[in-house]
Amino acid sequence: MMVPQKILLYLRFLGTNYCGWQVQPNGVSVQRRVQDAIEAVCGAREPLTGCSRTDAGVHANMFCCAFPTTANLPPERWIAALNAHLPADIAVFDCRAVPEDFHPRYSAAGKRYCYRIWNGSARSPFWEGRAHWVRGPLPEEQMNIAAAHFRGTHDFSAFTAAHSAVEDKIRTITDSRVFRRGDVITFSVTGSGFLYNMVRIMTGTLLDVAAGRIQPEDIPKIIAGRNRNNAGPTAPAQGLYLEEVYY
Amino acid sequence: MMVPQKILLYLRFLGTNYCGWQVQPNGVSVQRRVQDAIEAVCGAREPLTGCSRTDAGVHANMFCCAFPTTANLPPERWIAALNAHLPADIAVFDCRAVPEDFHPRYSAAGKRYCYRIWNGSARSPFWEGRAHWVRGPLPEEQMNIAAAHFRGTHDFSAFTAAHSAVEDKIRTITDSRVFRRGDVITFSVTGSGFLYNMVRIMTGTLLDVAAGRIQPEDIPKIIAGRNRNNAGPTAPAQGLYLEEVYY
Repeated sequence: MMVPQKILLYLRFLGTNYCGWQVQPNGVSVQRRVQDAIEAVCGAREPLTGCSRTDAGVHANMFCCAFPTTANLPPERWIAALNAHLPADIAVFDCRAVPEDFHPRYSAAGKRYCYRIWNGSARSPFWEGRAHWVRGPLPEEQMNIAAAHFRGTHDFSAFTAAHSAVEDKIRTITDSRVFRRGDVITFSVTGSGFLYNMVRIMTGTLLDVAAGRIQPEDIPKIIAGRNRNNAGPTAPAQGLYLEEVYY
Repeated sequence: MMVPQKILLYLRFLGTNYCGWQVQPNGVSVQRRVQDAIEAVCGAREPLTGCSRTDAGVHANMFCCAFPTTANLPPERWIAALNAHLPADIAVFDCRAVPEDFHPRYSAAGKRYCYRIWNGSARSPFWEGRAHWVRGPLPEEQMNIAAAHFRGTHDFSAFTAAHSAVEDKIRTITDSRVFRRGDVITFSVTGSGFLYNMVRIMTGTLLDVAAGRIQPEDIPKIIAGRNRNNAGPTAPAQGLYLEEVYY
């Protein structure tokens, strides 16, 4: 009995060894690995749609992707079946059937990203490739005050790659905060959507605040100026995690 | 000016790629990597004494080792100098000069180990090689009640490898507890000293408690019986971390 259905997968992956989510001419993508696993399970190479592109080296504690299938496998059975064919740095942790018109990207109501900074005085073997190392002690309270200014609905043109082709650069940030746990500082930001490199540029700007190059109260002016040059540098990919996707 | 001094290093290492601390005929040891780095910095291959042996695959958030040197380098300068020559999975995070009779092992007043269990329903790419995966939800309160019975001064013969040659198997455990943070369960145990495989066998016993094969109140009887066969299995190395060394 061939019942066509659409399957939504919830993935975790360590992005270190991948060129990002999207299939690229050079480099191995997470998408390709998951398509390989689906093919190994059901024999068909299905189109696989992700909830976002992610850059090379970016990680995900939750990444959603969907594919159509005629395989007669209940959703919960896909988890173990796919994990048996996925490499150690990618895993499916949940799976459900979704309506045919469900789109992992356009159906998402919002997303939460985390950017992690290892703030120890020496590099950490445990955070290698998993956080951005900044050695001088960072003033997380100042960074948190600055981060709060990202909240609200704004044109975030200053916080995206200058060459970005997206026309509408207005996004709504519902939460934005910085906190420390031991030597790890986390910038957590939740929003309706994000522009290309937006979280990494926000992080670079918060690091400029930490260094005293920008004052927390300058953030509204930087947003209003809509000029990429006024924001901080793009922080390295390795600290970025797609943390949650909300449907 | 050659001032002989003894240098104590504080290391972190991810043990996945090593045969343990100790130099072995087969396999690369952490000790060898650190000796190589010392040699690269000061030109001499110095004897390097560790605070304990660790098994293959075991990690350390704090591991102490000491070596004599005539190199005229202030202690704080060793940190960056050695880290430049160490691989990504080993790092020095602190360093100090110690008296000549200081011994990293015999001068230690105690140690704390943590054993980490990934308790998610699917394997986690982030804990691969860094925790032991147990998929069924574990009753951490029961495990914590059992763990508390390890506290005190006991003959821990039941909790060491049967072939262990050490004569005195009496050790004092000052703290022993189990707690959960999200899907990660940690067994933290502090003591004056530990027998070979002791923490891994304690963990295997706590997992037997979780599975209902042992009741928490059976632990005192298992200790008193001094028979390795009554304790649980030896939990895998990859979940074990030397967490702190106290001097």
